[in-house]
Amino acid sequence: MQVAIVLYDQFTLLDAIGPYQVLIGLPGAEVVFAAERAGRVITGGRGLQLHVDNTLADVPRPDVVVVPGGPGAEADQLADGPLHDWLRAVDQTSQWTTSVCTGSLILASAGLLAGRRATTYWMAMDELERLGAKPVTDRVVFDGKYMTAAGVSSGIDGALALAGRIAGDPVAQEIQLGIEYDPQPPYDAGSPAKAPNAVVESVRRRAAASS
Amino acid sequence: MQVAIVLYDQFTLLDAIGPYQVLIGLPGAEVVFAAERAGRVITGGRGLQLHVDNTLADVPRPDVVVVPGGPGAEADQLADGPLHDWLRAVDQTSQWTTSVCTGSLILASAGLLAGRRATTYWMAMDELERLGAKPVTDRVVFDGKYMTAAGVSSGIDGALALAGRIAGDPVAQEIQLGIEYDPQPPYDAGSPAKAPNAVVESVRRRAAASS
Repeated sequence: MQVAIVLYDQFTLLDAIGPYQVLIGLPGAEVVFAAERAGRVITGGRGLQLHVDNTLADVPRPDVVVVPGGPGAEADQLADGPLHDWLRAVDQTSQWTTSVCTGSLILASAGLLAGRRATTYWMAMDELERLGAKPVTDRVVFDGKYMTAAGVSSGIDGALALAGRIAGDPVAQEIQLGIEYDPQPPYDAGSPAKAPNAVVESVRRRAAASS
Repeated sequence: MQVAIVLYDQFTLLDAIGPYQVLIGLPGAEVVFAAERAGRVITGGRGLQLHVDNTLADVPRPDVVVVPGGPGAEADQLADGPLHDWLRAVDQTSQWTTSVCTGSLILASAGLLAGRRATTYWMAMDELERLGAKPVTDRVVFDGKYMTAAGVSSGIDGALALAGRIAGDPVAQEIQLGIEYDPQPPYDAGSPAKAPNAVVESVRRRAAASS
């Protein structure tokens, strides 16, 4: 089983690395990173660079596709292009086509979520709807072979749910124990419904200022 | 404020990227990666390579030090060497010296956790004690300026707790909302106390076979 995690300039690291750390635990899985251009790929804005060996063309038939989100997803990965062509092509044969955070905007802009239930980053729900999906505010949403996860850290939950469907509950539980995923956040502010209003407004203001 | 995340061959990606994704949200923070040798650094066993621009010598006075764990921590980062020299030096002036997973074994082998309460990956508690620390099975442990987090994914919780101490609760909550960290794991198997016995035994067997 081959898992392909797609990278592009200005993706958000945790969107990709959460699922990576889960899915490498699948017995027999080969997890590869692929990008439109091989070589260094800039991540979400602070200069860390990953070296990606595979171009999209090097990975023509992945069983599982994972599309992370990030500032690049919102900025310049919505116009139809080579990434979208590749996504449409591999989706023909994939067992699972998945995304984290605003990665679902890329899937939707490639036409793959038309009329489907899907989720995205909490601030991008309207945009997801504009792109033809049916937004759902759940943390992990399955619609047929399409799995979409909410913002950034949700890729860990989404990938564990996916691992369970691929390999069964005991294997997914072993992966969870392997990464000691027994979350105990020091605050309960991880969704706009739970965070204090002032916190939600501050995050919204900062996002508006930076876009 | 400068945050230095230390990398070395065969570190575990999520150990480093969880705290990274949290700590880049600290206002005014510069987060840098540093390694004994600059250039590509191999990660936890599956070939993804990060390009690290800074040598340890390039980062002489970080305010916060983060040491991830991984197979490399257990294998060849316990013998005293340049990484340990650097850790002892920067610890003289750091505001916070921290680790995730078996990163605490590196801190302990550098002599920085002698007699201190600390945690590590659930399978490495005995080793942490042998190296002179007082193991505690909490997910995040503070002892003075030393913060240690349990296995792999716990670095997110640890970094959020640290962000709260550095910048106050509202800022940490904004970071939590920014990464939509409202965890909803599909299973409750993230610690050996919670996972089914068969799952714990299977993970232990696999670890024994690979070491």
